Amino acid sequence: MANSKYEYVRAFEQPDVLLPNTWIVVRIDGRGFHGFTTKYKFKKPNDVQALELMNAAADGVMRELPDLVVAYGVSDEFSFVFHKDCTLFERRASKLTTTIVSTFSSYYVYLWPKYFPDAPLTPPLPSFDGRAVVYPSARNLRDYMSWRQVDCHINNLYNTTFWALVQLGGLDAKAAEKELVGTLSADKNEILFSRFKINYNNEPDMYKKGSVVFRDFDIPSTAPNALTEAAAIPPASASTKRLSSHPPDDAGPPQSLSKTATERDRKRRVKARIVVAHIDIIRDEFWEARPWILSGKAP
Amino acid sequence: MANSKYEYVRAFEQPDVLLPNTWIVVRIDGRGFHGFTTKYKFKKPNDVQALELMNAAADGVMRELPDLVVAYGVSDEFSFVFHKDCTLFERRASKLTTTIVSTFSSYYVYLWPKYFPDAPLTPPLPSFDGRAVVYPSARNLRDYMSWRQVDCHINNLYNTTFWALVQLGGLDAKAAEKELVGTLSADKNEILFSRFKINYNNEPDMYKKGSVVFRDFDIPSTAPNALTEAAAIPPASASTKRLSSHPPDDAGPPQSLSKTATERDRKRRVKARIVVAHIDIIRDEFWEARPWILSGKAP
Amino acid sequence: MANSKYEYVRAFEQPDVLLPNTWIVVRIDGRGFHGFTTKYKFKKPNDVQALELMNAAADGVMRELPDLVVAYGVSDEFSFVFHKDCTLFERRASKLTTTIVSTFSSYYVYLWPKYFPDAPLTPPLPSFDGRAVVYPSARNLRDYMSWRQVDCHINNLYNTTFWALVQLGGLDAKAAEKELVGTLSADKNEILFSRFKINYNNEPDMYKKGSVVFRDFDIPSTAPNALTEAAAIPPASASTKRLSSHPPDDAGPPQSLSKTATERDRKRRVKARIVVAHIDIIRDEFWEARPWILSGKAP
Amino acid sequence: MANSKYEYVRAFEQPDVLLPNTWIVVRIDGRGFHGFTTKYKFKKPNDVQALELMNAAADGVMRELPDLVVAYGVSDEFSFVFHKDCTLFERRASKLTTTIVSTFSSYYVYLWPKYFPDAPLTPPLPSFDGRAVVYPSARNLRDYMSWRQVDCHINNLYNTTFWALVQLGGLDAKAAEKELVGTLSADKNEILFSRFKINYNNEPDMYKKGSVVFRDFDIPSTAPNALTEAAAIPPASASTKRLSSHPPDDAGPPQSLSKTATERDRKRRVKARIVVAHIDIIRDEFWEARPWILSGKAP
Repeated sequence: MANSKYEYVRAFEQPDVLLPNTWIVVRIDGRGFHGFTTKYKFKKPNDVQALELMNAAADGVMRELPDLVVAYGVSDEFSFVFHKDCTLFERRASKLTTTIVSTFSSYYVYLWPKYFPDAPLTPPLPSFDGRAVVYPSARNLRDYMSWRQVDCHINNLYNTTFWALVQLGGLDAKAAEKELVGTLSADKNEILFSRFKINYNNEPDMYKKGSVVFRDFDIPSTAPNALTEAAAIPPASASTKRLSSHPPDDAGPPQSLSKTATERDRKRRVKARIVVAHIDIIRDEFWEARPWILSGKAP
Repeated sequence: MANSKYEYVRAFEQPDVLLPNTWIVVRIDGRGFHGFTTKYKFKKPNDVQALELMNAAADGVMRELPDLVVAYGVSDEFSFVFHKDCTLFERRASKLTTTIVSTFSSYYVYLWPKYFPDAPLTPPLPSFDGRAVVYPSARNLRDYMSWRQVDCHINNLYNTTFWALVQLGGLDAKAAEKELVGTLSADKNEILFSRFKINYNNEPDMYKKGSVVFRDFDIPSTAPNALTEAAAIPPASASTKRLSSHPPDDAGPPQSLSKTATERDRKRRVKARIVVAHIDIIRDEFWEARPWILSGKAP
Repeated sequence: MANSKYEYVRAFEQPDVLLPNTWIVVRIDGRGFHGFTTKYKFKKPNDVQALELMNAAADGVMRELPDLVVAYGVSDEFSFVFHKDCTLFERRASKLTTTIVSTFSSYYVYLWPKYFPDAPLTPPLPSFDGRAVVYPSARNLRDYMSWRQVDCHINNLYNTTFWALVQLGGLDAKAAEKELVGTLSADKNEILFSRFKINYNNEPDMYKKGSVVFRDFDIPSTAPNALTEAAAIPPASASTKRLSSHPPDDAGPPQSLSKTATERDRKRRVKARIVVAHIDIIRDEFWEARPWILSGKAP
Repeated sequence: MANSKYEYVRAFEQPDVLLPNTWIVVRIDGRGFHGFTTKYKFKKPNDVQALELMNAAADGVMRELPDLVVAYGVSDEFSFVFHKDCTLFERRASKLTTTIVSTFSSYYVYLWPKYFPDAPLTPPLPSFDGRAVVYPSARNLRDYMSWRQVDCHINNLYNTTFWALVQLGGLDAKAAEKELVGTLSADKNEILFSRFKINYNNEPDMYKKGSVVFRDFDIPSTAPNALTEAAAIPPASASTKRLSSHPPDDAGPPQSLSKTATERDRKRRVKARIVVAHIDIIRDEFWEARPWILSGKAP
């Protein structure tokens, strides 16, 4: 029995291959997480268990997709980066995006009982949406990552101050919000310190800087302290200098490694340790200390 | 602290709004399910528990997304249909696709222990990819659904015969495959009956016809036996006649229901029973008995 | 000498095939025609020669592209319609669009001396941009055409009144504009009639209704007066009734005519007379009298 | 009279903005030029008048679109390049493509009598189709340009030999084609020289290298002989070294020149001489001598 009579419907499928030689970022976001965090009583402004569950799910995604070179998470969002030479799924946008979203969701639900043993999930279940964006240059990619990390900082400073006013200062949400209208970073630091003896710099790095997830190879590092650095996010202008740590974007066709070399490269990536760090990714240090992230080549 | 320095990266996001007035089908597929089914020892050719888990996950998706009008599943794939007037997420392809894939994955992992209590999941976890395709006319949509159901029939007849040869006939996979090369449906039916006393018509409908998931409203049905019918899939040519049961495609702009009416309509859909049936969706009966599926209006 | 070293650049070409079973409208617009009409002293509010040149160029396009079923022009714009079953250039958007724009431009420049014998073209030359839009249903397509014709009417009534105030009433542009702020159609009709003895209904149909270009076949027409009708544009609500004159949109795959039949059909279209008419295309009459436009089949 | 009833059709327009920070190449091709060249008796293998008409039309396009940084033509095709920072028409693909195709067509028809005074055009008229492709890096762009120029060389050597066999050697087309099957460049050079005393190196550069069109600024050049060089196309491997003459691709957001500076820059481009040269664009010399092409900044 042939299926040809109906098969014409396949002609309606439209291709969605992402432009070659561009960095692919898939950002996923929790759907309706405002209600979700209320339902499961997430702590405010940051719930350590919830953040670590996000990171653990991202770890799962990194393990199942060795093509990913780095990821960055904050709050209920995570950005996953494929190298510009990546050819996974022929670079089909929907396939890349849905695979990441699906794998992340599976791990999130699977690992939930480990992080919230006393709050079993019930429908409606947590879910995530996602989209792919491509960036032509390493500078664009790093600016994207910087954008997310600056956003993390801005939001966390705001939320920390807001919840201090509510939880410690006794204000209601409306009053706290009003108090913060028009304040600058310095003002919020001042409120925290003078009224609640909170030194924002001493807040946990996971809150202030978000979570960077990457593969680490056991080689002598040129920046041994990178993982523990706690320096403040530098002024944005600091990153305008030329990138020095990544291969030039003027590469032509992807260098075709021999098949053996490709396979060896892949194996090294599969075996690499996956590290979750809460560090600055705006300045060059992070990238210079781990040249394999932007080169896409395991050391 | 302003984020404007990096915010230019948002300009790289490209819109992916699906053409208005078209039926949106999101089809999802299990990723690497060949290995997955081996790992968890799914029964061949069909594993009832695995199929019912798929259906239960689809049920979860239908409940969380009242905009969906119908879904159809077979093996490790499921197709979800949004009405042509649907405006959910402004019809953004990535948002619609990832939400379905994510929700399905969450339910699949969440419900797994209920269907496979003796085989706890371990990483790598099950995941699904998906894509959206739009169809301009109800005829195209129905032909898509027919395409999947014919595919179900073709594959199931093949698999049933193949596994009979292996499990009952003692052939190895290679020999069974060879035996089936070039056979027609009638030949396979004959092999099943003459050699294994299997009457293919008596196989469960879930295997032969797949699973249709839709909302049911408690109204006097014009086709009371629809859910139990077990008629063979009709010859493909039977469906070439004009569709008689759905509203014409020549509709202009979506009729703007009053806001109250829209809300009432939505509420009825949310409250409707979700039914999983194993019935023919190629002929007109299914659609004529449930005019709300193609009209998009709750009765 | 092989070219393979550089040929990888072809992989950056992205497909742009338009969704099957949809009506393709390519609308082109004069680029910078405000300055252009000043340079060549086009008459205001309408320049007959300029409009007839547009129509002649559209006629050239219709002759060179027999796949086009109808076109509609007003001012410096023209919309060309390919049937939903059209497979020209595999429905590639850029190819369809650029071919129409290029052919139109060639004819416009080629025919210029015939319509403006005393005003030879000099650089910068006239040019047009264009884009393709697809419509899933015949109702959508007809609403598109109606949209353009209503626009023609609105603009022409405004321009006729504006230029009467300027040319006959002695107002400067600013004063004329101010006079028209907030006026309804009835007000403009009244200004024209009471102050300038102009009955708008007596204005030429080409100005009021634009130009419809289509193929005519010498068959007994069921609406013999269609070409000469001068009835006012009907109230918009008149077109909400169901379309009765076109084939249902619920067609499945394009009926594959035999090769001979397709060839014969094409030949008839090539030989058909191309007609430019200034008539209503909002109501059903136009379409009912020429069923081949929406059916795509030469009678 | 409001137009709102039909205006919903605008929602079917889909955006087609090209990815920022990428080089935009619009390549146009003569439509059906095989027949066209026969109709107007173009000389084989190259018709000087026809090529110079192509170049003159490209010159017209460059003049009307100061955003273009370089163009390259061969036979009946021309590639036009917009700088990666270009924001013309908000980078809408259809607008960029159709404007170039239209302007080119207008000039082609307008200038025809100057180049073919004895062969007036008659319908069907010449037309061109076109498409836009984006390239993320300057290396990709240069490889695209090299691809076209290598293609020019390959085709011209073939055509020169083919037509020598036909016009001088008395072979018919079929025999000439057969003679060339499987021949390498060296073989064709040998056929030309030994049988027809033609030294391919002495063929005109316009035939061998095509036509490069760019803006020239009257500044002391670092490569004064560039325009007259006639060196053979280098082996492809020569261009694998790193680009040294163009700005790095790792630029972030387009540097916002002050409005005055932008305007001054634009004026300089408008006033620059447009040069048509027949020179090598594969090696670095061309680009190094004219850094403004890849930098996008008038000197």
